[in-house]
Amino acid sequence: MTTGRFITFEGGEGAGKSTQIAMLADALSLRGVPHVVTREPGGTPGAEALRNLLLNDAFDWSARTEALLFAAARADHVANLIRPALADGQWVLCDRFVDSSRAYQGGAGALGDEQVMTLHRIGSEGLLPDRTLLLELDADEAARRAIVRDGGGGDRIGARDAAYHARVGQRFRQMADAEPDRFVSVDAGGSADEVHARIIAALEPVLP
Amino acid sequence: MTTGRFITFEGGEGAGKSTQIAMLADALSLRGVPHVVTREPGGTPGAEALRNLLLNDAFDWSARTEALLFAAARADHVANLIRPALADGQWVLCDRFVDSSRAYQGGAGALGDEQVMTLHRIGSEGLLPDRTLLLELDADEAARRAIVRDGGGGDRIGARDAAYHARVGQRFRQMADAEPDRFVSVDAGGSADEVHARIIAALEPVLP
Ligand SMILES: Nc1ncnc2c1ncn2[C@@H]1O[C@H](COP(=O)(O)OP(=O)(O)OP(=O)(O)O)[C@@H](O)[C@H]1O
Ligand SMILES: Nc1ncnc2c1ncn2[C@@H]1O[C@H](COP(=O)(O)OP(=O)(O)OP(=O)(O)O)[C@@H](O)[C@H]1O
Ligand SMILES: [Mg+2]
Ligand SMILES: [Mg+2]
Repeated sequence: MTTGRFITFEGGEGAGKSTQIAMLADALSLRGVPHVVTREPGGTPGAEALRNLLLNDAFDWSARTEALLFAAARADHVANLIRPALADGQWVLCDRFVDSSRAYQGGAGALGDEQVMTLHRIGSEGLLPDRTLLLELDADEAARRAIVRDGGGGDRIGARDAAYHARVGQRFRQMADAEPDRFVSVDAGGSADEVHARIIAALEPVLP
Repeated sequence: MTTGRFITFEGGEGAGKSTQIAMLADALSLRGVPHVVTREPGGTPGAEALRNLLLNDAFDWSARTEALLFAAARADHVANLIRPALADGQWVLCDRFVDSSRAYQGGAGALGDEQVMTLHRIGSEGLLPDRTLLLELDADEAARRAIVRDGGGGDRIGARDAAYHARVGQRFRQMADAEPDRFVSVDAGGSADEVHARIIAALEPVLP
């Protein structure tokens, strides 16, 4: 039994993560690679229950509380879905993971990167992806795509202001620069097929 | 405006925390001391929502996830109720606080004390009570009281085995020994009035 690969998709709202993860899943199916598609926060019943608390407006969580809740949801997801699937030889394609917490709670929020990573060590024993695909798209085009999709309102976090989202994009770029072996920066401009071709090219070295 | 006092009640199930906190609140009312009674996990709408997730059987949280969720509930409670009440000059009487996490998740569970305190620093900037009343009662008498109250079944955590609860009691005693200025060990045996008299005597130095 081989161990599966753990691939995460990161980037701001509307960059095309969900679109590309579905296209990669289809490509893996064609190649006969067993895989599971999942997302954060969520992916397990416990984590989805936490997602509901996190993303709705009833509670105005502080940055500190929010960081703990994301870490808790991730701990449940890692223990009950991601690690078992990898041990079972499956690839795990995950829509957002700890780097989103680093960018949103750690970089653009009140906590530092070190505290977010400390929570990740305590909750998930520091599990990191084999490859992280960072979809980079300029803010105007991302906003256009989000408006086509849902009117652009977004959820509790999506609705934050442009300066917040600019800090998030900057943090993602810093992380990619700091960990070039794990991160692959993908130009998310152009058609979905064009972006997909870039992703397949980037993963070719690890694809069976 | 003076700052209020932050008093917590700790000890195993059935020791009499809820009973004694109500009696102390009455005594403070008689002396005209403004105060608020609260409990953990809970005390705020967000923390109570987390309490529902934590204490029910639908999710089998790991020790790591459980520790993060308790820290998140506490962070919300500290930010939105405890710190504002203290700043307002009120006493805060809290039924369980971080020492319960240290004893249950940190001592008897899979995490160490250091990790629980790290979560408390990140979530609540490490806020500690002015006085912690540790109600100590032998296990047989505590079980008898719990059976009189509710049949003794307890919740997800209360229902754990006797060895687990023995480790919890031992951890509480170690913490009290390590921080003698903050902890007051109270003999919880005898009638509720007798225990109350011991608590008033212990708090006399800080009572107005
Ligand atoms: N390459 C593309 N060109 C044009 N539109 C696209 C492209 N990729 C995705 N879209 C569309 O843009 C919108 C956002 O894409 P998608 O939902 O995949 O982004 P996302 O990164 O998952 O966003 P979120 O973080 O909000 O979940 C969707 O309506 C999608 O159909
Ligand atoms: N001194 C006492 N003598 C006899 N019974 C008592 C005494 N104090 C409390 N009790 C009773 O014992 C039961 C447990 O007390 P209480 O609910 O106050 O404990 P607790 O520490 O808050 O427990 P838990 O951790 O489960 O909330 C209740 O039925 C209560 O009425
Ligand atoms: Mg998406
Ligand atoms: Mg009680």
